[in-house]
Amino acid sequence: MFQYRPPTGDQQFVLFDLLDAPSLLGELPGYAEVDSALMTSILEEAGRFSTEVVFPINAGGDRQGCRYNDGQVRTPDGFRDAYVAFQAAGWPGLGCEPQYGGQGLPQVLNAALFEMLGSANHAWTMYVGLLHGAYECLKDHASEEIKQIYLPKIVSGEWLATMCLTEPQAGSDLGQLRTRAEPVADGTYRLTGSKIFISGGEHDMTDNIVHLVLARLPDAPPGSRGISLFVVPKRLPEGKAGAGSRNAVYCDGIEHKMGIKGSATCQMRFDQAAGWLVGEPGRGLACMFVMMNAARLHVGIQGLSHAETAFQNSLSYARERLQMKAPLRARPTEGVSKVADPIVAHPAVRRLLMTQKARVEGARALAYWTALMLDVAERHPDTARRTRARELLPLVTPIVKAMLTEDGFQCASLALQVYGGYGYVSETGIEQCVRDARVPMIYEGTNEIQAIDLLVRKILGGSDGSLKTLLAVITADARVHAEPILEAMAVCVRRVRALVERITESVRTAAARDPEAPYRIASEYLRLMGHLLLSWLWLRAARVTHATSGSTSALTPVGADKQATAQYYFQYLLPETDQLAHVIENSLAPTSLLPSLDADGN
Amino acid sequence: MFQYRPPTGDQQFVLFDLLDAPSLLGELPGYAEVDSALMTSILEEAGRFSTEVVFPINAGGDRQGCRYNDGQVRTPDGFRDAYVAFQAAGWPGLGCEPQYGGQGLPQVLNAALFEMLGSANHAWTMYVGLLHGAYECLKDHASEEIKQIYLPKIVSGEWLATMCLTEPQAGSDLGQLRTRAEPVADGTYRLTGSKIFISGGEHDMTDNIVHLVLARLPDAPPGSRGISLFVVPKRLPEGKAGAGSRNAVYCDGIEHKMGIKGSATCQMRFDQAAGWLVGEPGRGLACMFVMMNAARLHVGIQGLSHAETAFQNSLSYARERLQMKAPLRARPTEGVSKVADPIVAHPAVRRLLMTQKARVEGARALAYWTALMLDVAERHPDTARRTRARELLPLVTPIVKAMLTEDGFQCASLALQVYGGYGYVSETGIEQCVRDARVPMIYEGTNEIQAIDLLVRKILGGSDGSLKTLLAVITADARVHAEPILEAMAVCVRRVRALVERITESVRTAAARDPEAPYRIASEYLRLMGHLLLSWLWLRAARVTHATSGSTSALTPVGADKQATAQYYFQYLLPETDQLAHVIENSLAPTSLLPSLDADGN
Repeated sequence: MFQYRPPTGDQQFVLFDLLDAPSLLGELPGYAEVDSALMTSILEEAGRFSTEVVFPINAGGDRQGCRYNDGQVRTPDGFRDAYVAFQAAGWPGLGCEPQYGGQGLPQVLNAALFEMLGSANHAWTMYVGLLHGAYECLKDHASEEIKQIYLPKIVSGEWLATMCLTEPQAGSDLGQLRTRAEPVADGTYRLTGSKIFISGGEHDMTDNIVHLVLARLPDAPPGSRGISLFVVPKRLPEGKAGAGSRNAVYCDGIEHKMGIKGSATCQMRFDQAAGWLVGEPGRGLACMFVMMNAARLHVGIQGLSHAETAFQNSLSYARERLQMKAPLRARPTEGVSKVADPIVAHPAVRRLLMTQKARVEGARALAYWTALMLDVAERHPDTARRTRARELLPLVTPIVKAMLTEDGFQCASLALQVYGGYGYVSETGIEQCVRDARVPMIYEGTNEIQAIDLLVRKILGGSDGSLKTLLAVITADARVHAEPILEAMAVCVRRVRALVERITESVRTAAARDPEAPYRIASEYLRLMGHLLLSWLWLRAARVTHATSGSTSALTPVGADKQATAQYYFQYLLPETDQLAHVIENSLAPTSLLPSLDADGN
Repeated sequence: MFQYRPPTGDQQFVLFDLLDAPSLLGELPGYAEVDSALMTSILEEAGRFSTEVVFPINAGGDRQGCRYNDGQVRTPDGFRDAYVAFQAAGWPGLGCEPQYGGQGLPQVLNAALFEMLGSANHAWTMYVGLLHGAYECLKDHASEEIKQIYLPKIVSGEWLATMCLTEPQAGSDLGQLRTRAEPVADGTYRLTGSKIFISGGEHDMTDNIVHLVLARLPDAPPGSRGISLFVVPKRLPEGKAGAGSRNAVYCDGIEHKMGIKGSATCQMRFDQAAGWLVGEPGRGLACMFVMMNAARLHVGIQGLSHAETAFQNSLSYARERLQMKAPLRARPTEGVSKVADPIVAHPAVRRLLMTQKARVEGARALAYWTALMLDVAERHPDTARRTRARELLPLVTPIVKAMLTEDGFQCASLALQVYGGYGYVSETGIEQCVRDARVPMIYEGTNEIQAIDLLVRKILGGSDGSLKTLLAVITADARVHAEPILEAMAVCVRRVRALVERITESVRTAAARDPEAPYRIASEYLRLMGHLLLSWLWLRAARVTHATSGSTSALTPVGADKQATAQYYFQYLLPETDQLAHVIENSLAPTSLLPSLDADGN
């Protein structure tokens, strides 16, 4: 039976052993009391909520989907009740400031919460997933009056929020958006236009919905510099004329999708809807980009979520399913059926499982490390530390988003493969995981856009210093190790580090004579950088298990497990860098222009 | 709008230019009249049928699915009509002997037919997909009496057929199957047992359904040597007692699946059903294995089918969809919008498209080459030629099955990515392609089983000579070329060839001391072999365009297109072999045992 069990052991390993989060958080004002005991109890509560409240409505939500009728959206059975429980438990305000009613806890705990919610029920989590981003956006950019009206409602979860960016002609290219905002005499605006793919644009969970809408003022220049941000509530808030009445924001339909069917993906129409400007005119994209790092991290975490659920379930299945005798040596010595072994004993199945395990645990280390950096960037008292985190985040975030979502989809597909024919059957549950896991590769900026953002905009476009900072951090860590097993890993990290340095230079040189070159191999470059980060974190993970135990022979079972998984990563997954480097080098050659494909006859 | 257009140009290139199929077929008795004109006209008819009859009911079939009620299965609207048209046009008997009413045409045409049917509608094609296998199986193993009863009905398409192998406890491990066959006084048998995942086990397309069933005789030894093959019709045939009456074969339900929803995947129950033995007792698996090569080739072709449909549609979309300005040099010079370029001009999108294009065209070359080998193996008058084909087929077939289905699924996912958010919406059509494309990696022996079959059973288990034959063929072709572009490709082919030889030796040596070793990396080995075949065929494809044109500068547009795609394969796809070789080498090290994963705490 499809199940979800919070990965408490590995979460604690990453937070406490690998990253020593409590010590780091202890340095940050306001987080002095966030010790391992508090973190553990919050993780436990979040795990229980995910498992007991959110997971049980996952499969049903997929079967039933959302239903649209005349502007109204009904979410699947149980979705609203789960939200009521979420709100009652105070989860919406976990990472929000106490002055607006939040719990004032660090981003890294929010990341762990959302990992588990996403594992338990991706579709349901879509409704609450934008809440924190909307909170950050309004907190940083809205007027005091707007903050006082909206923030307490959002932090308490009384109102949910959306981000209304995409229009039919403006997806990756927001500069093309057309929604208009006309000023009216009372200082507000009237918004008119159509938005698509709006997650939670309409639903039955809260009475009010707060839309953050990108639109153009009448005198705005074309392109992305002409875009401003507005807050447009479904119902006009109290203290305003027409308080509580319906604003002219309408849902004209919902999409039928490959997955996350319980999440309402809405076509929205603004028909002279009342809106309030947030931030400066023409600075709409800048306001949104502030929350982008956190949002992209959270999409990356959805990849982790799916990989975790996929791994857990395919592992359970592989331990129970008996098929054929395993080859000698792999065969377990006890409790073996005379006819067949559990398929977990078959090396091919174990490869499918170990690949998932190494991806899951590496992804968790990378995601939580990044989330901790958000906390440091926000409030570390040491300017140098804060600056370093602020330099690294824009570099690391697109990697987390693209690599973890790609690996998440791949893991879900590997898990399905473990089930054989049963995996293709809906009842088993894993095929929903594959369908749901496909969308994070697309939204919040496609993975291709992430790669271009990393290589063209950041590395080549000016954040060269950030790359140097990152390489310095890794160099310091990948020093020569006395323990041979660790040194073998460190050698690999140093090799990838040197590869990244060399390839970055080659790309820079090639780009000077062939501006298209970096665009051709940005995706390979991103994965190469991803392996640099992952190999470094795996080295640290292996080292920390050694430091705890003293030597390889004295490893605890958990330590031995971690060490074996690290070794698997280095032996079976890191060699992808050979391919990536080779493709990049081939592509930089002057003969490597891609065919245009714009003529017929292809 | 989602569409399908037969890939006539590339089919003709592969059949006529690359493989020179008409000459080769001309050497085979009975195929003298199969010239390029006849082949072209059959391809055209098959393309028209696929496009006009089968494709229009693809999306509807997915939405509606099959409906089960009290033992009856209703296929989606239009499925039955399409079958009637298929039968009326004589397609069922395309590759069957004239003596049973067939058209006596070669396997390679059947392969092209099924590529197009699969592209147009995978689910519908499942019903007719087993017809040829059942025909071959009965033709080779059944008694004359059974042949006279069944073959004309199957060849005419009046009856459809199934293969009833899988049981709940016996999937990959057929040795565990339990269905019993008890002899009765009249020389027939009574079959009792349950089968699952039976494609087309029940439907409303034909009045009768011929089940080929694996079962055990009462005195059979355990394991796979105790399995016999029976023919069990849904309705008893004429000339028998109870002619036309219902046999005790029941459909107890159908599966709800991730994809191919229009294909009825049935749970079947045999309740003292009348059956007739086919072949010798205890030789059931051997009888089935005869048809396995053709069946596996056809599943591999389903991967090609999906990749083709995915490529066509994502290419059309990319030519129409305008988003953002493309980087310099990639930008088309004419007909450009001032605001944004068609996304086909963006290098990242072109990479997604070119990867699909190179995979599609390489897959087609490999699949048709293999199908031609089936024809040669069956009837080439020269014993040496026949023997060589019979040696190569068992080696090549698992590669075609596993590699093409994996790449087919990947291409479908790449195509979805080209569509961005629209790709995730059902209306667009591509997400169905992704869901449908997932199953060929599982059925007809999972891809992991194919890899073990290739490496452990065949390469290490005795067909070493076949590998030598294959390597000799490739060596002869990858000689030094005068034309620099061709020589650069030939260098790559020679390198992969040397790599395969070296790695095969390493695996053999490692297996002697560590029997688990080949099982750990069989999948990597299979893909490495796949690249050997594909790189060789791409070299030949590039060479043939040169031979036709005389020189690179004189290439026709079609030749230039082929050459550019070949170059893309060598620059961007072949480097996967670096990763594969590195993983295999790492895995052969004595320290590379996989963790057992059978204890808790993982």
